Formats: sequence, C-alpha cells, structure tokens
Amino acid sequence: NVIEVPHSGPPEFRVDANEYLPQIKKHAPKLILLTYPDGNYGNLPEAGRLGEIAQEYNIPYILNGAYAVGRMPVSMEMIGADFIIGSGHKSMASAGPVGVLGLKRKWEETVFRKSDTYSNKDIELLGCSTRGVPLITLMASFPYVKERINHWDEQVSKAQWFSAELEKLGFKQLGEKPHRHDLLHFDTPVLYDISKRVRERGYFLYKELKERGIWGPQPGLARSFKLSTFAADRQQLGFVIDSFKAILNKYS
Amino acid sequence: NVIEVPHSGPPEFRVDANEYLPQIKKHAPKLILLTYPDGNYGNLPEAGRLGEIAQEYNIPYILNGAYAVGRMPVSMEMIGADFIIGSGHKSMASAGPVGVLGLKRKWEETVFRKSDTYSNKDIELLGCSTRGVPLITLMASFPYVKERINHWDEQVSKAQWFSAELEKLGFKQLGEKPHRHDLLHFDTPVLYDISKRVRERGYFLYKELKERGIWGPQPGLARSFKLSTFAADRQQLGFVIDSFKAILNKYS
Repeated sequence: NVIEVPHSGPPEFRVDANEYLPQIKKHAPKLILLTYPDGNYGNLPEAGRLGEIAQEYNIPYILNGAYAVGRMPVSMEMIGADFIIGSGHKSMASAGPVGVLGLKRKWEETVFRKSDTYSNKDIELLGCSTRGVPLITLMASFPYVKERINHWDEQVSKAQWFSAELEKLGFKQLGEKPHRHDLLHFDTPVLYDISKRVRERGYFLYKELKERGIWGPQPGLARSFKLSTFAADRQQLGFVIDSFKAILNKYS
Repeated sequence: NVIEVPHSGPPEFRVDANEYLPQIKKHAPKLILLTYPDGNYGNLPEAGRLGEIAQEYNIPYILNGAYAVGRMPVSMEMIGADFIIGSGHKSMASAGPVGVLGLKRKWEETVFRKSDTYSNKDIELLGCSTRGVPLITLMASFPYVKERINHWDEQVSKAQWFSAELEKLGFKQLGEKPHRHDLLHFDTPVLYDISKRVRERGYFLYKELKERGIWGPQPGLARSFKLSTFAADRQQLGFVIDSFKAILNKYS
C-alpha cells in the first residue's frame, strides 16, 4: 500500500515536504520515500524539512538519490534520512545494473541480517549480488565521480542557460524555475503545431534531429521531451539550440 | 519457512525425489524447489519423478538449473516443472549478474503482473532490471551456448576420466558415482596428512599449485576442494593431474 503525496500540478509539479504531514497523520506509514530530485522534472524538494518531519513522527525515511548521488553534493545525515539510494548507471558513471545503499547504523541489523540457516547469506540480497563489469566500473569511476561533484554549480548554471535559450524559441520548461538540476522537461507547443501540418506528423522532429546527428527523442513524439544537459558541454548544447532554431525556421 | 529434504549423507549426499513426499504431506508447502544439479556435489536428482509428485499434489515446482541451463540438455516441460531458473554467469558464458527464468503460461499473470498504479511496472522485477554488459553478453554468447549443449556427453566423460585419475592418487570423489556432471567435490586426506607435518600447514597446497600456474584453491585449505572440469580440455586437466602427482611425490 503506497500513499502518494500530491504535487502542485503544472507547470512546476513541485512536491512540498510539508504535504507529507497530513498523509502521515492520516495513514501512519511504515516508511517515507522522497525521490530527490524526481526523474521527471528534476525538482529538488526540501529533503531536510522532510527529515525533520520523519524524525518527529519516528518513521524511517528513504532518500532516493538516483539522480543526485554521484552528480551533486548530497548528505543523508544532513538531510536527516535513514537510508540513501544511489544509482551506478544513472549518476555514478558505471555500467548497470548496479547501485549503492547507505543507511544509519541502527538499521544495519535489520537490513543486513543473516539467514538463521545459512550464516553467510544476507536475507535481503536476492540471488547473486553485484559482480563483474557493473562492480568493476563502479569502483573504477568512483574517484572521478567523487571529484566531479565539486563542479555541480557549473552543471546547474549550464542547465539554466540551456533552458533559457530553449524558452526563447517558445519551448516551455516544466518543473522548478530557476532550475537546480540538469534534468529538464520541456513542453514544445511550437513543434507540436508543426507536427499537425507536416506529412511525417510527429516523426519530423526525430528525422530532423537525426539528420543533424542528434539522437534521443522518441520517434513520433513532438509534444514534449525530457533531457539532461549533464554530459554535454556548452558548445554541444549550443549546437542543439541552433538545430532547434534551424528546424523551426525551416517549417515556419 | 523453508523445509529441507534430507540428503543421504556422505559420501554420496544424494537427494531422493521420493523424500519430498513425506515433507509435502506433513507441511503442505506452497512451493517445491529442486536444485539440479546441486552446486556442492554436482548430483543430478530425479527431477522428473519430483515433477510427477508436484503435479499429483498440485504444488508449483521450481527447477533451479543454475548449473544445468546452458551446460547440459534440460527441459522444464519434460521434467514437469512450473518454473526453470538459469544463471547467465554460472552456465551461460555471460557476464553477471544476470539470469533467465522460464515458466508455464499459467503463471504469466502472477509473475509478470503489472502495477495497478504504474501500468508499465512489473511488480516482481525490483529496481532497474538487467541492461548493459550482462544483457549484451548473455545475448552475444547465446548461439555458442546453445550449440555447446550438444557436446554434453563429452563433458561428462571428461569429468569421469578426471575423477578416476584423481582417485588413483588417493583423493575421494564425493557425490554420485559414476558422476554425471562437471562439478566435482573431492576429499583429499593425502593432502591433509601432508598439511599436518609441513611448515606452511594447509598453505603448502595453494603455494605448490600457484608455482605450477594453477589457481583456484582457497589458501590454507588442503582437506577437500570443489572444482569444475567444464572449460578445461583433457590436456589441461592432464597437467593438473600430473601436478598433483608431483606434489604428492615431493612430500612423500
């Protein structure tokens, strides 16, 4: 049974940590989860405020940092979470599937308890645990991942610049503004308008971008898209911006 | 709650499929599991007989084929199992962690049911499912794996030959005889006797093998060991046999 905390709706889709309070009072949950940031809009809710609430009501609190751990500074302890989750293949520059789990010492005996029958077996680790390429790449890239977190401000500023440039073209950035993460979600009514009057319908966007060497958008969709600016530099992102400009000009 | 079916004890450690019957009658289990072969002795119990029992009592039956699927011919359907498990990194020549699951169609809706809330989410597939190197290597090696199963008889005959040669040196093969799998387990009292009178104790074996370019035994252990003959050819296994002969001569 999962109770969802409502978000603020379009265009920002914010989650207010205080909105957990009425749900906690009503449902007395066994566990609190916050995805920080969310994978859809890249919003960074007030994780620390939720930590205070979790402690006040004495409910274990998981911070899902799949898009935070390895990208940006984040501290389970400062936030007041009991658990933190990181994703090797999402934000830690390693091959998947692999992830990391951090937890307060008080949960050690619960999460890592051994089988009564087989004293080497961690009960909660199903099947064969991580090994081979996922584990090796996680270890190999870790020093780089640790260092790159120091440059998070540059990542945020790059994302904000890119978003502002696309908004000049008539795209609408959803989620928080100013944005504080490289995950971005755009509504693109100007592209959608084109798709309604061209022969290829929504596929024109995929085709036009592919011709310019830009990959990623789902073929057929021109109404909105998500992207991350993390691994691209300003020159590459400038090329993406110019490409959108050229596509809009071509069909205007 | 797991009920274990007793094995026959040393030296064969056989599991008799009929021994499931009294446990089923007594405990009315929700699920029957057979590891085929077991990973300790390489015994191949009568999986088909257990299939008859499972059907008679209408209990779902999992065949854990971690050391069978990809190595030897095995058919869930012929055995009468409901589920079959294969291991990518144990017996299918791929990088781990990855595996395969087969099941009868009647279990499809139970095992692969989707979330009511998120219609794309398979509830039983936790977190991020397989991707990247594990998946790619599983796909890439599959044609080879499929073909090599045709040569299983040669694998068995090689294992039996190797086992017979080591027994000539005073090693005792545990598990079924004649053996029908490449996983072998030996008690090695002649090596253990040496370990009791040499300065390095049990480490002498690890050291002697390492000097000959043979890796694998746990340092310090000389009392017994497990091995697989699968990937080694007769010439390589002959070198292992000769090395054991030389080690025994050296310390005799």
